[in-house]
This record gives sequence, C-alpha cells and structure tokens, in this order.
Amino acid sequence: MGKLRFSITMSLDGFVAGPEQSVKNPLGVDGMRLHTWAFELAAWRRMHGLEGGETNPSSQVVEASLANVGAVVMGRNMFGGHPGPWGDGAWKGWWGEDPPFHAPVFVVTHHPRAPLAMQGGTTFTFVTAGIEAALELAVSAAAGRDVVLGGGASVVRQYLAAGLVDEVGVSLVPVLLGSGERLFEGLGEAGLTLEQVRAIEAPGVTHLGYRVVK
Amino acid sequence: MGKLRFSITMSLDGFVAGPEQSVKNPLGVDGMRLHTWAFELAAWRRMHGLEGGETNPSSQVVEASLANVGAVVMGRNMFGGHPGPWGDGAWKGWWGEDPPFHAPVFVVTHHPRAPLAMQGGTTFTFVTAGIEAALELAVSAAAGRDVVLGGGASVVRQYLAAGLVDEVGVSLVPVLLGSGERLFEGLGEAGLTLEQVRAIEAPGVTHLGYRVVK
Repeated sequence: MGKLRFSITMSLDGFVAGPEQSVKNPLGVDGMRLHTWAFELAAWRRMHGLEGGETNPSSQVVEASLANVGAVVMGRNMFGGHPGPWGDGAWKGWWGEDPPFHAPVFVVTHHPRAPLAMQGGTTFTFVTAGIEAALELAVSAAAGRDVVLGGGASVVRQYLAAGLVDEVGVSLVPVLLGSGERLFEGLGEAGLTLEQVRAIEAPGVTHLGYRVVK
Repeated sequence: MGKLRFSITMSLDGFVAGPEQSVKNPLGVDGMRLHTWAFELAAWRRMHGLEGGETNPSSQVVEASLANVGAVVMGRNMFGGHPGPWGDGAWKGWWGEDPPFHAPVFVVTHHPRAPLAMQGGTTFTFVTAGIEAALELAVSAAAGRDVVLGGGASVVRQYLAAGLVDEVGVSLVPVLLGSGERLFEGLGEAGLTLEQVRAIEAPGVTHLGYRVVK
C-alpha cells in the first residue's frame, strides 16, 4: 500500500500562505514570495506545460514529489472558487482545462457536487463525508501508489492531527511573512513523533523530509 | 569589525521554548525536547565541563558557534532569576561559578545592578540603556571579534527588528511543541532580507544558516 504524504513550502516563520487569501490572490499577500525557488526549475515548468528552465538540487525533490502519485486529496479552499454551495458549477479549479494532477483528485467539502472530468486524466470528486472518507476513496483509486495531500494548510493539519500522514515534506524558504496561515498550528496535542529523514540544500530553499513514526 | 550573530534551536512549529517558563523550568514545558540533539556531543559536553561524547555533523556547527566570540548579549529572562529589581543580588545566573561564556556578557535589563565577575573570564554587566547601548558596549569589549546574542527569544527579536543582526543560525528539530515562545513572531514589518548560506543535516536536527542582506 502507498503512503499518505505531502510537500509544502513554508516560510522561516512558519507560514504557507500570506494573509488575506482571496480568489484574486490565492496565496495571500506576499504569498508568491514563498515559491520563487520553484519557478525557474525545468521540472516545475514541465508540470505547467512550459519549456526550458534549470536543473539544481531542488529538481530531484520536485520530481520525487511528483513520482508514484496515485491520487490527490485537497481541501475546498485549495480547489478554490468561493465559499458556500457550488452554485452554477462554473468554477473548475485554478488550473484550466488540463490540470497538472493527471490523477483522481478528491476535494473535501461541505457542499455536494457531481464529479468533474478534466483533460489529461484529472478528475475531481467532491467528498462531503469527511477526511477519513476522502482518504479511503483516494487510497482505493491510488491502487497501491501514494496519496498526496495537495493542500491547503487546513486539510493538511486535519490529516496530521488525525495521525493519518506518513511523510511530511517541508521546503523551508528564508522569508519572514509575519502573518498569514501557519502550517503547524495547534498540533502540540496530536502527539506526533517525527523522524528527520533528509535535508537537501538548494538555491533559496532547504527541503526537509520527515517520517511520522507510528 | 565582528558580526552580530546568534544560533538558536527551534521546533518545526517555530518555538524556541515551551509554555510556562519559570525558574524551575527555564525552557518551559517540554522545552528540553528541543535540545536533545546537543547533549551527547563532545563539543557540548566540553563546554559544560564534561568529558566524552560523540562527534557528528553537529559538532562543527557547535564549534563554529563558539569560535571567535568576543562578547555576549542576553536578555534578563535568559540570565534568569526572577522579574523586577534584583533584590539581594544572590542570583548569579543559571550557570554556577564558572559560566560557559568565558567572555564579557551584557545583560539587557530594566533594573540597574553592579557588574558581576565570575570565574573563567565571564563577567556580567547589566545594561539599562536599551539594546543599542548594550550592543555598543559589547562591540567595544569584543575588540573586533563577533558579538553573540545568547537569547532569549525576546532580545533576539528586538535586535532582528532593529536590523542589527548580521547572521542567523537556526537548528531546526523535528518536534511539534504546539505552544510556547516563538522566535520569529511579528517580524513581517521588519523588512529583513535573508540569504540562505548553509543547511547542514545532522542526526535529529538540521542546522540552517542565513545572512541578513544589508
């Protein structure tokens, strides 16, 4: 069976998004500063249908995060659009007609909606029965490969607090946002034991990998 | 002229001490969990007058942090004892008669007190004129060598916010404390630009080094 894992970029002061996240500014104020390490990578550009780009120690990290992915679980805010019921269903995610997942994606939401098949093998299935139910569907769809938490921070925190995550990937960037959404908020009571398994230094970022000891 | 720098151990969720710090529990609840990576190091044991211990990639980091130190600046809580006026002056710090600094130490406090000469070259000078005044005295005493911020978090934050720090060292440990004292709290407005200069993977810790771009 595959693992449940995630990779997320975090500022040195612990934020994975800036304040005032909105449809126009999904990463919040200054949130884009977190991700500049990735934009010039060939691996990142390829994933977004762009050519060119460079190779550096971050490349293997991005490639490993994209390998062996059988399914993706994400929260409603990550899928985006607007809060509340889905309305006319016009919102199909941030990613256009050919999203970069190429796998079944399960969106945890309070609001039911019919599944959405996109180009390139991405399907969005909307799950209203909670995080365990979404994980069960994802594990089944993944057929032995890994299930990746796509974000946002809230869904990642819920899976961490429930002790369901196997591997934690944090790409730590030398940025002090000062405010926004913290990834590891309120997890002191979760009793998680993390084992450091890697630290990869790359231009403008250090990629940290941890295993959750069960 | 030397640099103003500090090295501090931080949990993955951003805390440098647990909650409920007190004289009996200076690192706060569970705060000791942050420092287990250091206790078995020969370099750490030597600093505290103990023999034996091991050598691993953390050793060079500890040794570098102890090299070329001309003076130390610390806050009142780091020096410890109790809040308010010094009273009978019986409190001489946590470290006994031969503190591990072996250098002039400047304690930033609101309460005047006569200097305190200890064994082994450590002197404590109490500075009531603020962080800039303490730094000026420390730079002068250091005579070209580095000035190290000994902590705690509050004093480190004040020097960071004032743009006076040259080098930031964070030893990041795979611990989620959940609450306590955050190192990088409220520094979003300080406008600091950090450049990552090193990431050293060691057992149970990753040592991150940043330069403050001036």
